Amino acid sequence: MTKQYAIVLAAGQGTRMKSKLYKVLHPVCGKPMVEHVVDQVSNLNIDKIVTIVGHGAEEVRSRLQGKSEFVKQEEQLGTAHAVLQAKDLLGDLDGITIVVCGDTPLIESETIGALVKYHSEKRAKATILTTTLDDPTGYGRIIRDDLGIVEKIVEQKDASEKEQRVQEINTGTYCFDNLSLFEALSKVSNDNAQGEYYLPDVIKILKDEDEVVAAYRMANFEESLGVNDRVALAEASRLMRNRINESHMRNGVTLVDPSSTYIDVDVEIGQDTVIEANVTLRGKTKIGVDCVITSGSVFDNAEIGDRVKIRSSEIEDSKVADDVTIGPFSHLRPGSDIKAHVKIGNYVETKNAVIDEGTKLPHFIYMGDAEVGKNVNVGCGSISVNYDGFNKFKTKIGDNVFVGCNSNLVAPVEIADNTYIAAGSTITDDVPEGALAIARARQENKAGYVKKILDKHKK
Amino acid sequence: MTKQYAIVLAAGQGTRMKSKLYKVLHPVCGKPMVEHVVDQVSNLNIDKIVTIVGHGAEEVRSRLQGKSEFVKQEEQLGTAHAVLQAKDLLGDLDGITIVVCGDTPLIESETIGALVKYHSEKRAKATILTTTLDDPTGYGRIIRDDLGIVEKIVEQKDASEKEQRVQEINTGTYCFDNLSLFEALSKVSNDNAQGEYYLPDVIKILKDEDEVVAAYRMANFEESLGVNDRVALAEASRLMRNRINESHMRNGVTLVDPSSTYIDVDVEIGQDTVIEANVTLRGKTKIGVDCVITSGSVFDNAEIGDRVKIRSSEIEDSKVADDVTIGPFSHLRPGSDIKAHVKIGNYVETKNAVIDEGTKLPHFIYMGDAEVGKNVNVGCGSISVNYDGFNKFKTKIGDNVFVGCNSNLVAPVEIADNTYIAAGSTITDDVPEGALAIARARQENKAGYVKKILDKHKK
Amino acid sequence: MTKQYAIVLAAGQGTRMKSKLYKVLHPVCGKPMVEHVVDQVSNLNIDKIVTIVGHGAEEVRSRLQGKSEFVKQEEQLGTAHAVLQAKDLLGDLDGITIVVCGDTPLIESETIGALVKYHSEKRAKATILTTTLDDPTGYGRIIRDDLGIVEKIVEQKDASEKEQRVQEINTGTYCFDNLSLFEALSKVSNDNAQGEYYLPDVIKILKDEDEVVAAYRMANFEESLGVNDRVALAEASRLMRNRINESHMRNGVTLVDPSSTYIDVDVEIGQDTVIEANVTLRGKTKIGVDCVITSGSVFDNAEIGDRVKIRSSEIEDSKVADDVTIGPFSHLRPGSDIKAHVKIGNYVETKNAVIDEGTKLPHFIYMGDAEVGKNVNVGCGSISVNYDGFNKFKTKIGDNVFVGCNSNLVAPVEIADNTYIAAGSTITDDVPEGALAIARARQENKAGYVKKILDKHKK
Repeated sequence: MTKQYAIVLAAGQGTRMKSKLYKVLHPVCGKPMVEHVVDQVSNLNIDKIVTIVGHGAEEVRSRLQGKSEFVKQEEQLGTAHAVLQAKDLLGDLDGITIVVCGDTPLIESETIGALVKYHSEKRAKATILTTTLDDPTGYGRIIRDDLGIVEKIVEQKDASEKEQRVQEINTGTYCFDNLSLFEALSKVSNDNAQGEYYLPDVIKILKDEDEVVAAYRMANFEESLGVNDRVALAEASRLMRNRINESHMRNGVTLVDPSSTYIDVDVEIGQDTVIEANVTLRGKTKIGVDCVITSGSVFDNAEIGDRVKIRSSEIEDSKVADDVTIGPFSHLRPGSDIKAHVKIGNYVETKNAVIDEGTKLPHFIYMGDAEVGKNVNVGCGSISVNYDGFNKFKTKIGDNVFVGCNSNLVAPVEIADNTYIAAGSTITDDVPEGALAIARARQENKAGYVKKILDKHKK
Repeated sequence: MTKQYAIVLAAGQGTRMKSKLYKVLHPVCGKPMVEHVVDQVSNLNIDKIVTIVGHGAEEVRSRLQGKSEFVKQEEQLGTAHAVLQAKDLLGDLDGITIVVCGDTPLIESETIGALVKYHSEKRAKATILTTTLDDPTGYGRIIRDDLGIVEKIVEQKDASEKEQRVQEINTGTYCFDNLSLFEALSKVSNDNAQGEYYLPDVIKILKDEDEVVAAYRMANFEESLGVNDRVALAEASRLMRNRINESHMRNGVTLVDPSSTYIDVDVEIGQDTVIEANVTLRGKTKIGVDCVITSGSVFDNAEIGDRVKIRSSEIEDSKVADDVTIGPFSHLRPGSDIKAHVKIGNYVETKNAVIDEGTKLPHFIYMGDAEVGKNVNVGCGSISVNYDGFNKFKTKIGDNVFVGCNSNLVAPVEIADNTYIAAGSTITDDVPEGALAIARARQENKAGYVKKILDKHKK
Repeated sequence: MTKQYAIVLAAGQGTRMKSKLYKVLHPVCGKPMVEHVVDQVSNLNIDKIVTIVGHGAEEVRSRLQGKSEFVKQEEQLGTAHAVLQAKDLLGDLDGITIVVCGDTPLIESETIGALVKYHSEKRAKATILTTTLDDPTGYGRIIRDDLGIVEKIVEQKDASEKEQRVQEINTGTYCFDNLSLFEALSKVSNDNAQGEYYLPDVIKILKDEDEVVAAYRMANFEESLGVNDRVALAEASRLMRNRINESHMRNGVTLVDPSSTYIDVDVEIGQDTVIEANVTLRGKTKIGVDCVITSGSVFDNAEIGDRVKIRSSEIEDSKVADDVTIGPFSHLRPGSDIKAHVKIGNYVETKNAVIDEGTKLPHFIYMGDAEVGKNVNVGCGSISVNYDGFNKFKTKIGDNVFVGCNSNLVAPVEIADNTYIAAGSTITDDVPEGALAIARARQENKAGYVKKILDKHKK
């Protein structure tokens, strides 16, 4: 079978991004642009992917490690020069080579696959991926003869009036016969105003040599969107969002307002789950079936079970089992492990904490570095005092414990099963099973005292 | 006067919804699709509404109870078969019958009324509600002769090239002479590829019998949007939102960003109230004049007075009187009754609580199962301890009470008028009028102790 | 050099706004409509700006004080009558006069400047600012002769069928030779159905006198959007938002979803800062470089340094220095001054408080009227008890203090450097340097007590 290679152009500086961040690393729906491209390319049966990186691109390497090989383009001398950098890795190989830009995050593997198929069917040496734009101004036009055969690519500045009216444009993605590509590349000159080596010149060279050059026109021009500034970045994010959100809806997820729902590419959501507007789901978040996630919720790598209802809360690197309710205004910090049928109300913060089945944390609670048993009721305002200014310690609460309101559980401390903590107590010692722990002063009512206070203030 | 009937087709399974929820029960702006349709039909002078339900449609019945009669279609044998199920209820009656789909939530009574009027004027036996689409692909086309007289409906698969270019389509809503409808229905056959009985065949039968068949073309094609998957559901919700929000704006409500404001159909809002983006108003929520509701607020059956300012807070099944301020990040749970001029700050939770005029709950407070008098100041971190692990009890606070910070009011407890609770007290006994209640330990300063602690940690 | 004047028409009542607020004072992206107009006009070299105000327009005067002179139009007798009110201030002056409506908030100074330039080049006595609409219905049409010379403005109701097809419309903004304007104004009659004096009649008068009348067509018709109801107000806000947000993106700010980001006109944001969807930035807010502001955040006059990360929090009239992290769900009230490297977690409220470098306020804290030193750790649930029911007092905390959880610091109180407050303490007295302060009862474990409680509840 024919070998297939891919060259991803990722060395562009992107000065119009006005950013310290390397251009192709700007994220679109949670994933760097270039990684979208490499992942789409990888879906095809590719023998070798080479990413051309520029100065300061170590971050690209580390981000794409294992997904691509890398070649550094020391100087930015044009797209043909960039592709030529892959010569040592690819120059002598039989096969076909896809060239794709790292700043076109919307390109899909189906499209690249169709390009390759067309290229093979046409027995072409080069095939240009093209699309049709209502307003093609600024793009290289595809000039075809009366039979539809590609004659050349004409850049905007060189286009005649008639050529300017052509709406079919070069997307910058190509498929080449690999050996022909590198042979042609060696002939590209920089004899132009900018002194750069341009990849479209390869097309001209091949045409001059009477080789077959084809052009595959894709239906959805959005896939070719190249990101050169933050306006385009926002537009690419919007289009990617539409794609992701439509896919979830088709799978049986209700999105109340897909245009205001922010779901990263790798998120999974079960059927009949309802996601309200202005919910953000990041990273490897996974949500089960029949859940309801209300407006304002933000999850980052959250693993949520079935039939969970979460209102306006934030969750990071945590697990929530089936039939749990949470929120509004709660915050599960990393390492929270919430078991089934737990009820977490408003203003509850957990961190590195296991909360076992059927337990209730109704309001104003901090449970950090804690293990809480089954069927526990933690009163309003109760705190696991896990830090003494030097170290963090653990709080253990057994099953069937009742923790009164505004209690401090000063860790390290163990509250055994079936115990009861009186409201307002600061618990510094372990509480044995069956005991009531209390640590508070008796109430005193000082009769008539308010009059004294008022009199003092009247003076 | 001519009797009018309506048949609502609500038996479709909606497999593309991929849902356990019965298709027509999926909500659009807080109301099931089919209820939108039935409510719009009900606005006309209808003598009998019959909803055709399918297997497992008990929920439809219970939701529409009192608004419609029901007939069950045991098997899904096509739209004509569905309509035929109403024969026992309607078959022998003189009058006209509207047939409308339960999955077209955007249809408006004005449009149905105009259809009926046109039907009557044309003395037709059947009138099809039609509209014009830029891309009619997939819909049944309305074929008219040179005089504009309806000849037939042609389905996509049967349409000639010329017919495919027709942009006028069948919306699936009809008006019939009732007796003619049922007579024709008895003649519809299932002699087709799918073996189903199709309602448009009634049109053919009537035409073959030289009856008058008319078509009323509505201007706004959006009303005919049928919901068969969640993508269409989201689109229907967007269009319904636009309709609701535009109506509020025309009534003198400022919506900062109507495209991101989520207001259920039955919500009422007074003039000069400003609603910021990403506010959700559900159920029977009613808001007075001159209010400001900021971003992130979610109200469910909230009754809000005039000149109320609520920042980023959630309110359910509660009342808020005039001149109250709330938020941000507060949560009024069911049964909260906030009287005029109350000030509720951030992180305040109330539940089943009356908060009387002029009282301040500035921050970090839980008042549940409570009655709080006038001009009370509840300190930061104070809690009504309403649950002892077995039962819920009531907290009563009189007028002019000052509750110090981080206090626990252990219910059942009564704090009389003009009393003062010292900060940090756990109050377990009633406080008589005029008394200062205190329940805390004296402070001790252990000089040089920090050095000891540090020394210990250095070891 | 030619003197330049401007007349801003701001006397319209705007009954379709259905508002107690004067029409032109309705804000668009944080600034009243009329102030947008006056500010754009002021960007040009204008010698005198006169705003025509109507009944009850004191608020307009006070809002625009120093930016414009004012003339009151006592009765609303039409636009020509409105302009005529400026006669005492402008009537005798040589120069050119721009007339612009106060309810067109999107008009830009570049456009007005181009209008003035064109007017001068054409040596016209009057130049109409025009634009082209797809649907010009309702607008006054610009009728030109075969040479393109302006013949007249024809109102919708007077337009012939041919004239109705004209798509060039009068935007209501004009440039006049000042003396010609006032001379013509004196000839305008109210001999029409409404009995009003119309400004477009000035054009007719000048044409009848064979003066040169020109028309300058602007490219972007959106600038001419006039706001007469809240639907148009929302639309104007949307367009202004797009303009503001695009400008930030071009400057190197990432906006995840610009269509749902609400940034007032005067806000400044540094490069490489990322602003998530549903963030609201109001007033004079200024944000440094490399910040991340997540969804749900609302800032009002906040001054934020560099490399600050703020999650879902609200900030008003406060300063936050470099390298601070805040949130989620925190609230910085006015007068908060957060120094560098401070860490503020969730549910933290500050007000009129200096928090010095490196200090941590991790959770559930209220610091009001406080000075907190460097490298302090304030425990969860700790409160500055700043109010005794009569006055507010100050809490001072030195450097390197450890405040245990659920502490009350009853102000006025000073906690010296290097001190330690035990968890659950109510601190009423100053704590000297190096001391440990403790104020709590000892814990008592009552063995077997839970059985008693249970037995009691079983009865």
